[in-house]
Amino acid sequence: MTATVETTTDLYPSRLAQPGEFIEREHPTVWGTAEDGPFDADALDAHAQRGFTVLEDFITPDEVTRYSAELSRLSSDESLQGDPRVVTEKSSGEVRSIFEVTKLSERIDALARDPRLLDRARQLLGSEVYLHQTRVNYMPGYKGAGFYWHSDFETWHAEDGMPAPRAVSCSIALTPNYPYNGGLMVMPGSHRTYVPCVGETPENYHQDSLKEQKIGVPSEDAITELAWRYGIDQFTGAAGSALWFDANIMHGSGNNITPFPRSNIFLVFNSIENALTEPYSAPAPRPEHIGSRDTTPLR
Amino acid sequence: MTATVETTTDLYPSRLAQPGEFIEREHPTVWGTAEDGPFDADALDAHAQRGFTVLEDFITPDEVTRYSAELSRLSSDESLQGDPRVVTEKSSGEVRSIFEVTKLSERIDALARDPRLLDRARQLLGSEVYLHQTRVNYMPGYKGAGFYWHSDFETWHAEDGMPAPRAVSCSIALTPNYPYNGGLMVMPGSHRTYVPCVGETPENYHQDSLKEQKIGVPSEDAITELAWRYGIDQFTGAAGSALWFDANIMHGSGNNITPFPRSNIFLVFNSIENALTEPYSAPAPRPEHIGSRDTTPLR
Repeated sequence: MTATVETTTDLYPSRLAQPGEFIEREHPTVWGTAEDGPFDADALDAHAQRGFTVLEDFITPDEVTRYSAELSRLSSDESLQGDPRVVTEKSSGEVRSIFEVTKLSERIDALARDPRLLDRARQLLGSEVYLHQTRVNYMPGYKGAGFYWHSDFETWHAEDGMPAPRAVSCSIALTPNYPYNGGLMVMPGSHRTYVPCVGETPENYHQDSLKEQKIGVPSEDAITELAWRYGIDQFTGAAGSALWFDANIMHGSGNNITPFPRSNIFLVFNSIENALTEPYSAPAPRPEHIGSRDTTPLR
Repeated sequence: MTATVETTTDLYPSRLAQPGEFIEREHPTVWGTAEDGPFDADALDAHAQRGFTVLEDFITPDEVTRYSAELSRLSSDESLQGDPRVVTEKSSGEVRSIFEVTKLSERIDALARDPRLLDRARQLLGSEVYLHQTRVNYMPGYKGAGFYWHSDFETWHAEDGMPAPRAVSCSIALTPNYPYNGGLMVMPGSHRTYVPCVGETPENYHQDSLKEQKIGVPSEDAITELAWRYGIDQFTGAAGSALWFDANIMHGSGNNITPFPRSNIFLVFNSIENALTEPYSAPAPRPEHIGSRDTTPLR
């Protein structure tokens, strides 16, 4: 009985045995209003339509320098060697991401609470928010392998138990994003379409999936259909620019054969009204440092 | 005695045992004059400076359709299966390039002799010209693996015996080149710097190198220095646009995770005054379909 109820109430089924139809999302993208600020009505409309917003000069050049130094410090911190929060590149072993970075860095913790971020996150999600996931990413020159097309929400729903796509990510560039050094590609508008994926989630899948995801990725047919429907945009811009993007937008990145590295701070805000439940399609929830269950409102 | 003379007269040494210094090229980039037409003086200056020229609408949409059909025909021509002129993708086995395509297609042969191409090639090289290498390239969506940074001339000199960089390539796009579907990246101005590469050329190396080149590629230090000195540009544009580029320009391409394929016609014109000799750094010349020794002027 319970099982039936759960099945019928899962609005975002995935990890299926057979390919499923696209699901047109009913949940809003923008949950707050222009009165809440700081985004004005046009900016909110554009965000709702495209599923992302780029803000140039989001942080100052001084801040870029300061956070970059913080990233260097963390990536060479020997006390973090072997820490499960540190993810290394599959082929080279170099540091690729450090998770739960707000707990490892006071500076980045303070940044997450800065009104520039916190007020926008609250406005987009229409409620108090908490940090679902935080990390810094390093994509070195030459060795950056890229990341195939995916929706973050598909994973957060299936593996973390996030009920609805009422979460938003903020990626702050600490290096220039050129069109050719593996910058993020997004499909504008694709956040309104949920793509169920095929394949059962293995146990402890996150230990591999953070390096290279194989389950929870859409089929080539699905990506082709989305790409023709929505097209592709790239997040390019100077260091200090920010990309705010919806939890369900289809995105990916190519490899980087240039000498120009890319690094960024990546913060995922979730509504406190969208707290994690049991995973919808995985044997057990992922660890706290990947999907936080502490919904204390960020202040 | 002969050996000594050859060593001292090799202006472009490569495949060395130890890393060598960059060599600033003395040979011109543009060998003809504006009076020869069709490029005017400004266009020739720009080409000499940057080492490449992009011409939008170089062929008409009708021609794009016609040549694309020709590419489809060739890639599915069963009589070409196992033909050494057909190069397949390392991982998937799909057709990646077909060499000596002017001998396989009357249409493409006629295109190479078209005054739009032939007159420009003659003007840039300041002499009658012949076709050193011709091919069509297919980079499928999703599976396009890209090609690491290299100078074509380095290979043509070392493996084919091309004496000087008095050759020019014309790449005609048959599909749109977006910034994000693995389009060619060039370093503007890098054609004036010759980068000796490390490593002895194995026998029959072309059988592997056309899929993935490992010998004859510059070191990461060399590419980093060139990238900071010259920067990186991408060849983007609609189907029908053409890129003319110097034999020695440093270029490469990233992978393609988008559904949008790339295909092009690639023709290398060499001056008849720059006929191939014995390879400068390889046990034996590559086959005729990769580096032609028939210097009959193209008419």
